[in-house]
Amino acid sequence: MNDAPRSDPSTSPLLLDLYQLTMFQAYVDQDMEQTAVFEFFVRRLPPRRGFLLAAGLEQVLSYLEDLRFTTAEIAWLERRGFSRRCCGRLARMRFTGDVHAVPEGTVMFPNEPLLRIVAPLPEAQLVESRLINLLHYQTMVASKAARCVLAAPGKTLIDFGMRRAHGAEAALYAARAAWIAGFHGSATVLAEARWDIPASGTMAHSFVQAHEGETEAFEHFARSRRKGVVLLVDTYDTEAAVRKVVRLAPRLRAEGIAIDAVRLDSGDLLALARRTRSILDEGGLQATGIFASGGLDEDQLRELVGAGAPIDGFGVGTALDTAADAPYLDCAYKLQEYAGVPRRKRSAGKETWPGRKQVYRRHDDGGQMCGDTLTLEEEVLAGDALLRPWMAGGKRLQPPESLATIRERAAAGIASLPPALRELEPTDSYPVTVSPALRALAEECDRRTGGAAFT
Amino acid sequence: MNDAPRSDPSTSPLLLDLYQLTMFQAYVDQDMEQTAVFEFFVRRLPPRRGFLLAAGLEQVLSYLEDLRFTTAEIAWLERRGFSRRCCGRLARMRFTGDVHAVPEGTVMFPNEPLLRIVAPLPEAQLVESRLINLLHYQTMVASKAARCVLAAPGKTLIDFGMRRAHGAEAALYAARAAWIAGFHGSATVLAEARWDIPASGTMAHSFVQAHEGETEAFEHFARSRRKGVVLLVDTYDTEAAVRKVVRLAPRLRAEGIAIDAVRLDSGDLLALARRTRSILDEGGLQATGIFASGGLDEDQLRELVGAGAPIDGFGVGTALDTAADAPYLDCAYKLQEYAGVPRRKRSAGKETWPGRKQVYRRHDDGGQMCGDTLTLEEEVLAGDALLRPWMAGGKRLQPPESLATIRERAAAGIASLPPALRELEPTDSYPVTVSPALRALAEECDRRTGGAAFT
Repeated sequence: MNDAPRSDPSTSPLLLDLYQLTMFQAYVDQDMEQTAVFEFFVRRLPPRRGFLLAAGLEQVLSYLEDLRFTTAEIAWLERRGFSRRCCGRLARMRFTGDVHAVPEGTVMFPNEPLLRIVAPLPEAQLVESRLINLLHYQTMVASKAARCVLAAPGKTLIDFGMRRAHGAEAALYAARAAWIAGFHGSATVLAEARWDIPASGTMAHSFVQAHEGETEAFEHFARSRRKGVVLLVDTYDTEAAVRKVVRLAPRLRAEGIAIDAVRLDSGDLLALARRTRSILDEGGLQATGIFASGGLDEDQLRELVGAGAPIDGFGVGTALDTAADAPYLDCAYKLQEYAGVPRRKRSAGKETWPGRKQVYRRHDDGGQMCGDTLTLEEEVLAGDALLRPWMAGGKRLQPPESLATIRERAAAGIASLPPALRELEPTDSYPVTVSPALRALAEECDRRTGGAAFT
Repeated sequence: MNDAPRSDPSTSPLLLDLYQLTMFQAYVDQDMEQTAVFEFFVRRLPPRRGFLLAAGLEQVLSYLEDLRFTTAEIAWLERRGFSRRCCGRLARMRFTGDVHAVPEGTVMFPNEPLLRIVAPLPEAQLVESRLINLLHYQTMVASKAARCVLAAPGKTLIDFGMRRAHGAEAALYAARAAWIAGFHGSATVLAEARWDIPASGTMAHSFVQAHEGETEAFEHFARSRRKGVVLLVDTYDTEAAVRKVVRLAPRLRAEGIAIDAVRLDSGDLLALARRTRSILDEGGLQATGIFASGGLDEDQLRELVGAGAPIDGFGVGTALDTAADAPYLDCAYKLQEYAGVPRRKRSAGKETWPGRKQVYRRHDDGGQMCGDTLTLEEEVLAGDALLRPWMAGGKRLQPPESLATIRERAAAGIASLPPALRELEPTDSYPVTVSPALRALAEECDRRTGGAAFT
């Protein structure tokens, strides 16, 4: 397979849309190598969303740093019909541009750039597909996870979604995005191996079924695990299983093993949690917690928490990793300037703001976010400028941020959201205004290309 | 990083839920190494779905063949607290079991097993998370893609979803699943490099914007591409752009370059396609096709096709790769037998049929599917037995099926669907009955574990 392109999707430079390569060739043919400016932003929030939580920048920076084509890949592209000149340029291709972006964990809103690429046009264009693929998914999942955090304050939240995440990379990055948003861990072991995100887990129904009885299953599991013992009690009859746990506990305690929690995974979780709590308390297991899972989303978390369900932690799986109620963001990576001239697209419903932009954010005296302004890069306003430089001339300007830093930033951002945006059904939208200078630039672009003013 | 686990998510054996490892340890501690039988199935169809198209088996077989832990991974697990005995067993771990499954491209229904694993319990349990992760996604996307194929018969359908697919692996496997279901290609280049799925693409709005005028952009692109030229006409004013295409065509024709199609990506596609068709025809470009994209799903395809829109092909992106209206399947991988004893789970709403099962499918005289029966493996009924052996003792029984074979099977299956299931809103459900012998086995299981009969 020496002559074959690398086929691992996470690292292959061929994971892109064909048109990136055909446009690359056309640009190279015409020597269109001047500086292009592209920005990534979300056009509209999905239904019921009040904000976004930016995530995925670190993966974009790694992608840009590592992007190169092997000899085998270039040979394949030549066989595929790309010109010798195009293939020569691809063989030399390194990302040599600048990256500005908001740091991961920043609360963001529609039409605000999350990231800007300034690079020779062929490079800036080539990276579009994978850059969107990376930023879109983690931002979507972090934004969904933030809703779970808001719905269940003080509860332990664990990402359980690996099995129904869309493939391997989604499973891994969902754990990262959820951790950034304030989750306390993930069932996905690789997330701990890679980022020290605490892996957490219980047992499957099959474990109970493989044993002759539940008590035997619980006992074997507890003796093998010894610490962090969580027993699944809904395989046959939940209340009966909880009573078995109570009867088993003294025997395990004598061996120095505590039962940390029981897990409910089906049925009426509110009623079962109350019955379970009573049985555990009556059995002297006040220190044994209740963990719930089974198709949960932020709405069910809010309902259970609001009803005072005695549940200490939740596993959120499929709804989180697929962002099931809104499994994509209407996002784009658009050309804003080429060869020093601002550009804008005017396709119906898809108009963009031209030029290099900045976002200024204001907080009130209590530290609450109270409004953003979308400006040209060179404007200076009161408030915090959200976009920062991360890469210059293709080189990182600093080492990767720690996940702890990112997670703290997200927590601070979520804590400073206006009350209307802290609800699962936002009752108001956040004020984002556009600076007069940016409006003037958009009008100038339209005059140049003969279009109507941006409305 | 010699001591670090491999961190590529697609190949790391640590891409699993922690409980797979804690259960593995508990089984090893208790010498519970007897034969277990697990089956993967979908419990319920998502709303508006009438059937599933099975896909992803090839990736599962590769995963099982290649599954092993490196010394660095074992060392990490030991540091992580797993017992020496458990780690020793993991270090020796190879999948040594049998696999039965329906071939990819088979039309399937709820509660029918798509795949069965028969292996020593620790092995059969360990592979659960990734096996579901692989089968779930491709089956979901193939099933969604089949709806697009049914909605737009005779039209060229291209997967455009890479950028908003959930990560790298999803982007790649979406192209494969869509191809199986009858799509004609994908924009994702890596799918062609890996599987010869034809890569297809046009140009981005940024290409037009980077040029001073549309005509110049079209001309540069056509000269560089020469074959398969598709020009994007909605960047500024669609009708004006189509007129520019008409004026440009003779000049390109003189150079031996044909304009294969124009692409519409926004606005009222029906009205714009009609206007575009008229302008092209009046300009003598009857052979230039119209390609449409822009947030399309199967409902919009049906609507456009039903209204007689003069559109020759469609790019279906986000809706396909995320299965946006139903971004997950309610699927499971459940223990059906251990140590020769059938097992079943009875959690509320999640009951399973025990034992090793087979599915028999009957066709009427016209070749139309008319009913399935879920049976015990050893029963012999009229019709086709859908599950076949693929792996024995951890070895493949035959080389991988070609994608062409799988795609033909899917086409034949879709063609033999009853009319009620060919609608986007199925008007009836497909008859799947359960054999008396299987019902009797379920009752026997319940008597043994003291539960109520399966209803």
